[in-house]
Amino acid sequence: MSPIAWLVSSQAIQKELFKNTLRKAAHAWKRIIELRLSEEEARKLRFFVDEPAFTDLHWGMFVPAIKGQGTEEQQQKWLPLAYKMQIIGCYAQTELGHGSNVQGLETTATFDPETDEFVIHSPTLTSSKWWPGGLGKVSTHAVVYARLITDGQEHGVHGFIVQLRSLDDHMPLPGITVGDIGMKFGSGAYNTMDNGVLRFDHVRIPRNQMLMRVMQVTREGKCVQSNVPRQLIYGTMVYVRQTIVSDASSALSRAVCIATRYSAVRRQFGSQEGGVETQVIDYKTQQSRLFPLLASAYAFRFVGEWLKWLYMDVTQRLQANDFSTLPEAHACTAGLKSLTTSATADAIEECRKLCGGHGYLSSSGLPELFAVYVPACTYEGDNVVLLLQVARFLMKTVSQLGSGKKPVGTTAYMARAEDLLQCHCSVQKAEDWLKPSVLLEVFEARAVRMCVARAQSLSKFPNPEEGFAELSADLVEAAIAHCQLIVVSKFIEKLQQDIPGKGVKQQLQNLCNIYALNLLHKHLGDFLSTGCITPKQSSLANDQLRSLYSQVRPNAIALVDAFNYTDHYLGSVLGRYDGNVYPKLYEEAWKDPLNDSIVPDGYHEYVRPLLKQQHRNARL
Amino acid sequence: MSPIAWLVSSQAIQKELFKNTLRKAAHAWKRIIELRLSEEEARKLRFFVDEPAFTDLHWGMFVPAIKGQGTEEQQQKWLPLAYKMQIIGCYAQTELGHGSNVQGLETTATFDPETDEFVIHSPTLTSSKWWPGGLGKVSTHAVVYARLITDGQEHGVHGFIVQLRSLDDHMPLPGITVGDIGMKFGSGAYNTMDNGVLRFDHVRIPRNQMLMRVMQVTREGKCVQSNVPRQLIYGTMVYVRQTIVSDASSALSRAVCIATRYSAVRRQFGSQEGGVETQVIDYKTQQSRLFPLLASAYAFRFVGEWLKWLYMDVTQRLQANDFSTLPEAHACTAGLKSLTTSATADAIEECRKLCGGHGYLSSSGLPELFAVYVPACTYEGDNVVLLLQVARFLMKTVSQLGSGKKPVGTTAYMARAEDLLQCHCSVQKAEDWLKPSVLLEVFEARAVRMCVARAQSLSKFPNPEEGFAELSADLVEAAIAHCQLIVVSKFIEKLQQDIPGKGVKQQLQNLCNIYALNLLHKHLGDFLSTGCITPKQSSLANDQLRSLYSQVRPNAIALVDAFNYTDHYLGSVLGRYDGNVYPKLYEEAWKDPLNDSIVPDGYHEYVRPLLKQQHRNARL
Repeated sequence: MSPIAWLVSSQAIQKELFKNTLRKAAHAWKRIIELRLSEEEARKLRFFVDEPAFTDLHWGMFVPAIKGQGTEEQQQKWLPLAYKMQIIGCYAQTELGHGSNVQGLETTATFDPETDEFVIHSPTLTSSKWWPGGLGKVSTHAVVYARLITDGQEHGVHGFIVQLRSLDDHMPLPGITVGDIGMKFGSGAYNTMDNGVLRFDHVRIPRNQMLMRVMQVTREGKCVQSNVPRQLIYGTMVYVRQTIVSDASSALSRAVCIATRYSAVRRQFGSQEGGVETQVIDYKTQQSRLFPLLASAYAFRFVGEWLKWLYMDVTQRLQANDFSTLPEAHACTAGLKSLTTSATADAIEECRKLCGGHGYLSSSGLPELFAVYVPACTYEGDNVVLLLQVARFLMKTVSQLGSGKKPVGTTAYMARAEDLLQCHCSVQKAEDWLKPSVLLEVFEARAVRMCVARAQSLSKFPNPEEGFAELSADLVEAAIAHCQLIVVSKFIEKLQQDIPGKGVKQQLQNLCNIYALNLLHKHLGDFLSTGCITPKQSSLANDQLRSLYSQVRPNAIALVDAFNYTDHYLGSVLGRYDGNVYPKLYEEAWKDPLNDSIVPDGYHEYVRPLLKQQHRNARL
Repeated sequence: MSPIAWLVSSQAIQKELFKNTLRKAAHAWKRIIELRLSEEEARKLRFFVDEPAFTDLHWGMFVPAIKGQGTEEQQQKWLPLAYKMQIIGCYAQTELGHGSNVQGLETTATFDPETDEFVIHSPTLTSSKWWPGGLGKVSTHAVVYARLITDGQEHGVHGFIVQLRSLDDHMPLPGITVGDIGMKFGSGAYNTMDNGVLRFDHVRIPRNQMLMRVMQVTREGKCVQSNVPRQLIYGTMVYVRQTIVSDASSALSRAVCIATRYSAVRRQFGSQEGGVETQVIDYKTQQSRLFPLLASAYAFRFVGEWLKWLYMDVTQRLQANDFSTLPEAHACTAGLKSLTTSATADAIEECRKLCGGHGYLSSSGLPELFAVYVPACTYEGDNVVLLLQVARFLMKTVSQLGSGKKPVGTTAYMARAEDLLQCHCSVQKAEDWLKPSVLLEVFEARAVRMCVARAQSLSKFPNPEEGFAELSADLVEAAIAHCQLIVVSKFIEKLQQDIPGKGVKQQLQNLCNIYALNLLHKHLGDFLSTGCITPKQSSLANDQLRSLYSQVRPNAIALVDAFNYTDHYLGSVLGRYDGNVYPKLYEEAWKDPLNDSIVPDGYHEYVRPLLKQQHRNARL
């Protein structure tokens, strides 16, 4: 449609939507206070409000930034205000012309020793802060990232607490230009969030509003590193990305629940002599698209749980000044963030398609689930950029293999590179593919072989950076192979534990096998070109996959019911627990505003004259 | 977001949007009359209005249905009314519980010999017509598909012209319940279209409103086949699907144009000592995702042009009573509709991601381009169902290979099955992959080998239908291999013609090679498991691909400028011809309705009390 049409129509929707979100946030906060909820309980309450809002950034980014990067003194000053929402904060990092590359930010914070202040300034249009949620209309404060300049020297990018709006009348403070950046994907989705634009015209803040836990600027304008290790920020990244993996599993399980339930309700073809048609969930084409997504929802849940443990482990080690596992943990969470969010975004859209035409209706819940989810592929590290970081770490790991430095954590398998480069897959019949040791070995062998082959290709370039740039697309594939192995191995590990509930373990085993064998099928080129398996073995894997689909089929509904979503939270007519889809779709339709009147607005002006006109000139 | 929130906000948007569409359609029609446009010119004008509207169905489905299925007499009565828009029609086929399976429709048309009428009736809730565009609020008439019943006997599904609304006051006629089915994906997209629901309570129409070109019902209620061959409807399907392939190329080229231009504007990382950052289009990760889509846009355009020729050929043959190529032409267009629409939907979303965060803004144009395009994967034949039809045709072709019946058209290569099952790819160095004959042979060999392997697997099942169901997911893959071969071969054929313009042919050759080699990489498992190429050759193909990306890079902008889209039509701030993206993004933001006031609506009710409250109870 033309831009003008959506501009016209967006006016009403965005204001209405946004005000409604303010209302909900205020009400949620009221309940949090009244019920004396703990931080964890308050987080859960906001989760069930299920709508992006400025509070996400206040609690999820502003408060953690002060906690992580502020000194004790700064924390004591700012956190109580933030905890009571007497100030509302956001996280102003990305700029109009600068996204992933934090070192490329242009905003400056210049120390003025005369007044003991920093001057925050936006020197160019592209340095305008752009995208921060909560910034556009609500936040009173922000943690602003800017290039620190003292005494004419640059000292890298640091965070500064800057007040943006008056606490009395909410007007922007002098020197501050701030507003909303406009409509986004979908009819709801992130349109409830005031993603904002922000420019500074020489705005002055006291020196003690630079977050100084890691580096301090003295009264004289000298930069002094504290004894707090810089690596701490990686700990925060591990935390944030770990929550994103959990969220991926939630979003995916929601879409899969809708698509699975409706696949059991919907019937198409296959009727014999006018009898009832076949449930679409019984078609192998449907199963082969749907069940791998169901398996992924479980796989991501288990790897998310494991990442929680990893974060705790990293935290304990950091407290003991042990940084040995940090690079591996960082690469692992970066890779899993990328893998799970990309897979989830694609899967939600696939679930929508699996619902046929009706998936396109807003009342299916799937269009908005997609629109609200896809930014996860970009925020907190673009998914391709993250995979390149993983690849860089893997190449380093491979290069150190001979050196006696033992690979740790999720790269430990690389210590067995010599064996894995040689091994032959033992599968001779389809059922052999059900052995966890077999699956693990082929995924390990594929990852090692791809990494080693890339490392060899890289070594042929005289300039390693040039080689890395030239081969980057291939390196991304090696990183994906490594990350998929992590998910498969954590699923297998999970199943080595006790699983309560009769028959549950068997069903989860089926899903684990589906997850792994479907990946094998999708990335067959990797497995064959590295000689990890033979064409015959790949064909047996396919046979086994079909058989697994048949085994999951009778339990598919129970496996999505187990996610335990209420109809209200699911928000989908197609995904109703009681399967009463068609009467409810029919009922919903009549609530459509176009049905307020039988003859539509505009009929008399635009349709009737059309039907009644004379056509003296027409050539048609 | 919660269903309640979007219900509230959807009220205003949908009515406003829809009325605006009525206004535009009326204005377009006024201009068509005033300017005395031809049918082709009028079609083009509607194309540039660039917004789904009831007129699409009137001209694209209602008129062709009467032309194709009506008798001479019926055409003479109804077409002049439709051509002058003195009636407005839609195409009422799908039902709430029935999509792809036309034979499963439940609506009945029972002949009443006493009154010489048909009684149109919706016997169940699931028989409600559901989805037809233009039905909800505008159409005065519909071609309704219903099961014909005469004398207690069923005679299959046929089309009937039924008046829905009064031509005087637009009120639904007695026995007719009609309305809009509600909000759909996106904030604009198909929300400009009144997709509708329709129920009949014993609605009577004269006998001569059944479309009787192929079968007639006599005054006595007897069914008489006319001498017009039933295959004619396949001719119509070939026509409609051919236009869908052309549309895929248009939509894809639009998205690629935006992503390519913005990839040249946007810079990320790679700055040396504070210098300017690298244009993202120079990154191999960006090129390896973007350039195959650029190549696809050209590939689909050329295969679309060829399909136009195919339709003319089929039409001429039908007129000469030659049905020999019809099944092949039908399978070919079904497959290409499926292939190109699936690829285009995915590609638009990929282009959005290739624009980074800014692609998520409505002003990028990409979110609505996606939302308005995706239904193409479902309408006019669900893409998976269509591939199964292709697979069925391919299995039949393979089974007849020994019989002397020569495969025709796009399956002609199967006559060389014996050679293609044996051949070895001759590639020894990367440049060998540039030979059209080499590419063609490996794509032919892959398709034949996959088809023959599937046929062999099928033959092991005692019941062929059971085998087809069990192996359907594998059969779909064989169909895809066949369809990809068609696109590759038509691209190669195009390049054997004269191409005007200096250097243009070389660039198109690069794109052709990128299209083919990228598919080879994506489906490497197919090529390796069938032994069409070796792992070494696949690695050489990858090397060649990287080199092709470097060759396309300097011409990428020219290759998208060649699509010749105006900024107005493109509707994207990121895709501006002049590359002046950031100032315009900044400018656009301030037009956002949330920026109408500095302090947002709702501040006094919901934000200020939050900031000012006392927290006696809080545990936080």
